[in-house]
Amino acid sequence: MYEDRIRNPQLRSRILSAEEAAAYIQDGMTVGISGFTRAGDAKAVPMALAERAQRTGERLRINLWTGASVAEEVDRVLADAGVIARRLPFQSESHMRACINRGDVMYVDQHLGEMGEWIRAGELGRLDVAILEAVAITEDGCIVPSTSVGNSPTFAQIADRIVVELNVHQPESLEGMHDVFIPGPRPHRQPIPLCQVDQRIGTPYIPVKPDKIVGIVVTDRDDHFVEIAPADADTKRMAEHLVDFFEHEVRRGRLPKTLYPLQSGVGAVANAVLSGLAASPLQDLEMYSEVLQDGAFDLFDAGKLRFASSCSITLTPERARRVMNDLPAYRRHLILRPQEISNHPEVIRRLGVIAMNTALEVDIYGNVNSTHVGGTEIVNGIGGSGDFARNALLSVFFTKSTAKGGRVSSIVPMVAHVDHTEHDVDIVVTEQGLADLRGLAPRERARALIERCAHPAYRDALAAYFAAACRRGGQTPHLIEQALSWHARYRNAGTMLAPTRQEV
Amino acid sequence: MYEDRIRNPQLRSRILSAEEAAAYIQDGMTVGISGFTRAGDAKAVPMALAERAQRTGERLRINLWTGASVAEEVDRVLADAGVIARRLPFQSESHMRACINRGDVMYVDQHLGEMGEWIRAGELGRLDVAILEAVAITEDGCIVPSTSVGNSPTFAQIADRIVVELNVHQPESLEGMHDVFIPGPRPHRQPIPLCQVDQRIGTPYIPVKPDKIVGIVVTDRDDHFVEIAPADADTKRMAEHLVDFFEHEVRRGRLPKTLYPLQSGVGAVANAVLSGLAASPLQDLEMYSEVLQDGAFDLFDAGKLRFASSCSITLTPERARRVMNDLPAYRRHLILRPQEISNHPEVIRRLGVIAMNTALEVDIYGNVNSTHVGGTEIVNGIGGSGDFARNALLSVFFTKSTAKGGRVSSIVPMVAHVDHTEHDVDIVVTEQGLADLRGLAPRERARALIERCAHPAYRDALAAYFAAACRRGGQTPHLIEQALSWHARYRNAGTMLAPTRQEV
Repeated sequence: MYEDRIRNPQLRSRILSAEEAAAYIQDGMTVGISGFTRAGDAKAVPMALAERAQRTGERLRINLWTGASVAEEVDRVLADAGVIARRLPFQSESHMRACINRGDVMYVDQHLGEMGEWIRAGELGRLDVAILEAVAITEDGCIVPSTSVGNSPTFAQIADRIVVELNVHQPESLEGMHDVFIPGPRPHRQPIPLCQVDQRIGTPYIPVKPDKIVGIVVTDRDDHFVEIAPADADTKRMAEHLVDFFEHEVRRGRLPKTLYPLQSGVGAVANAVLSGLAASPLQDLEMYSEVLQDGAFDLFDAGKLRFASSCSITLTPERARRVMNDLPAYRRHLILRPQEISNHPEVIRRLGVIAMNTALEVDIYGNVNSTHVGGTEIVNGIGGSGDFARNALLSVFFTKSTAKGGRVSSIVPMVAHVDHTEHDVDIVVTEQGLADLRGLAPRERARALIERCAHPAYRDALAAYFAAACRRGGQTPHLIEQALSWHARYRNAGTMLAPTRQEV
Repeated sequence: MYEDRIRNPQLRSRILSAEEAAAYIQDGMTVGISGFTRAGDAKAVPMALAERAQRTGERLRINLWTGASVAEEVDRVLADAGVIARRLPFQSESHMRACINRGDVMYVDQHLGEMGEWIRAGELGRLDVAILEAVAITEDGCIVPSTSVGNSPTFAQIADRIVVELNVHQPESLEGMHDVFIPGPRPHRQPIPLCQVDQRIGTPYIPVKPDKIVGIVVTDRDDHFVEIAPADADTKRMAEHLVDFFEHEVRRGRLPKTLYPLQSGVGAVANAVLSGLAASPLQDLEMYSEVLQDGAFDLFDAGKLRFASSCSITLTPERARRVMNDLPAYRRHLILRPQEISNHPEVIRRLGVIAMNTALEVDIYGNVNSTHVGGTEIVNGIGGSGDFARNALLSVFFTKSTAKGGRVSSIVPMVAHVDHTEHDVDIVVTEQGLADLRGLAPRERARALIERCAHPAYRDALAAYFAAACRRGGQTPHLIEQALSWHARYRNAGTMLAPTRQEV
């Protein structure tokens, strides 16, 4: 049956087992695999590689490039086998995270929309082997990707050798949903001609020189999607705050009824917000995003979403089965693009995207930490949040006002790590409320964030810190010797709550 | 004589004194004035306004929008008169700075390339009066700007009323050097068609509805340029390090011999670097920048600079006289654009600009503070550095390794304020050396920055901090309770130098 999916007859002779394909990978090599937000990732060959390393005990340390996060077990088995020396540009798996935080894996956490440029400019060195999941290979030997596009077009362009994982479990009806475009060389590059979310500017396949395809591994497996936390009372309230704000802006004439194209980051809150929009009077919405989660399909099913452009489709397992079965109904409303295009500053700014991303913590001046707990331990990475927040018409960040059962305030005097500066943060939403920071100076931002977003248990302490800092002065008043004391206190005492009311 | 410069006959009757024009400005209004890096600023009307406020004692508090910094005495007299309630998006004057740091002026320090979007989207409210310097008014009543374009095209489009300051001191030969383009409305905007630094995409004047011009004030005065610090041994060494690096990259085939279009921020170091390039074997260089300082004209004069696109020309007083006298020789090598275009992510990314900006301090992981001394007191503002650093092909930051006679290290464990995250910082240069951080993980970045960029007097203490932090672990290891202790020590003891070798 898989033969029908290999439409180039010469390539039918290059079927290999995962183990045989993994033999192309040797110590010191750089390997690029498909996959973005756990969708469309190469699965069999990386796992065969890990198995080989553990079986033979050979010295095998590689640099692993991906689109973004890949299936948990791919990063996990590679981390456990100790074969990863360097990892770019994003991950979200607990064993890999532990290796990174121990310093065993060099992790270059990086704007997802920029990596293609770095690779093509030669700034990261050569790419020895690319392993790319496909649903089909065309007559010309080009690759039809599956549920994500990621960095695969650039990997295919640059790699010395390509291994295709032909996944017969992924529906063939995915073919035709992709639009592959790679910007030309600089400095005399032409504009990216994309001016509408539903516009096609490239090819429905990844261009490949067929001679580079050294093997095709046939696989038959689901994307390894995971459940996401269901909406709770807090995430529902955040969604309500944001929908109220959107409606207010529409009444003020600052946003059209169809809003602007929406970007929504990965996670439970973003998902809840999209579901919240499904129940609002807003309609004919569009998305220009890097990932589509269940919430986007809730919007489709509610008839609210006219069109969605994305880099990947990442669903809960049960929803994935339904969507993949119903793909013909969705496909005319959907385009999947390379991450360089889904996350490109040029396109995001041109379309006027409304960016919605999640913060770990926000400081009183609106600087956002998306990545580092306590300023030190990374959770996942910056991902696409910077691409969108910087270039958006409106940049929204969500966070619950507290974490760890109330022992951590998500609104702090100073964030312990900055991923997004105050310049790139327009709206902050917690379950307590929404702060509209546009056009405000830092001292005004502080008042808005403390009053509207902080949890009542921390509001007085934040106000006291801010008042004391203002007495000392400055555009962005801080008591520099106390600015990170809340984090230090949490580290020492297990809570950010001050022992007495007096202490700030 | 000025009559020849007002080519629309109806408008010749609208000549006003500066005092009469200032009468259009009332308490609570928002006023937008031309001016970018002290070039081409409206001078007479703002100063008449300040004079009026001081003379009458009336209640007069306005919001002042500019392109970027304006002449020192404009911001100074307005600050001294107490008439500024809110200031956007950049300033560089000591009295205004003091008002801002005291909290008397709400200062919204902001990416210079974004302000036009905010204004047109209505996010900052209405603009009552625009005051725009011109060298001429066309037959159709349109405005020919002088030594900068700044935000003037958007101010002209949005303002209820326009006052023109017709400066007969500025040479008429500036006409024809400007290229004015305003991106269309979103979400169905077309690409900005600019693909080469010397390409014209707009009009040589600012389109204006002549009915909005309520007055023309004739002035006759220089731009108020200032001297910049001459290159010293340290800035010369920085320039040498960077030129060596460029030559190395050319040999490696990663940069062409003509490099990519250069952006160079304001200041002595940037100026010294450009002068350094004049003595290098590199040639046929191009600039795509927001400002051209003396160094750019050194490159022109050395025959090294093929073409420069900028938003303004900001020179030392003596050089300004020479350049303005020789303008016909330079003008075919120069275009002046609105700051929205000179600083546009779309164009900067497309051209592959090499961005060169100045840091106040850099932390061991490569995060940059460009604005806030001790994390609190602002110096100037982020300006265009973020527009360029984020979107550049190569983002370079300069800083001397120490300040305050060696009592402050510019390489610190953690910056006290973040303007540019590690993701946007590729190369750091001090007089000690150059660190190429591309493709490095945070722990690798730390080793490179400590070894190559830190001053020897601080190197051991930085290495000790880093080693202790690594023992605790993390992707970005910190001792959170000590991360800002160097800044606290400077505040208390007047030096970052540790009292003993033991203390880190």
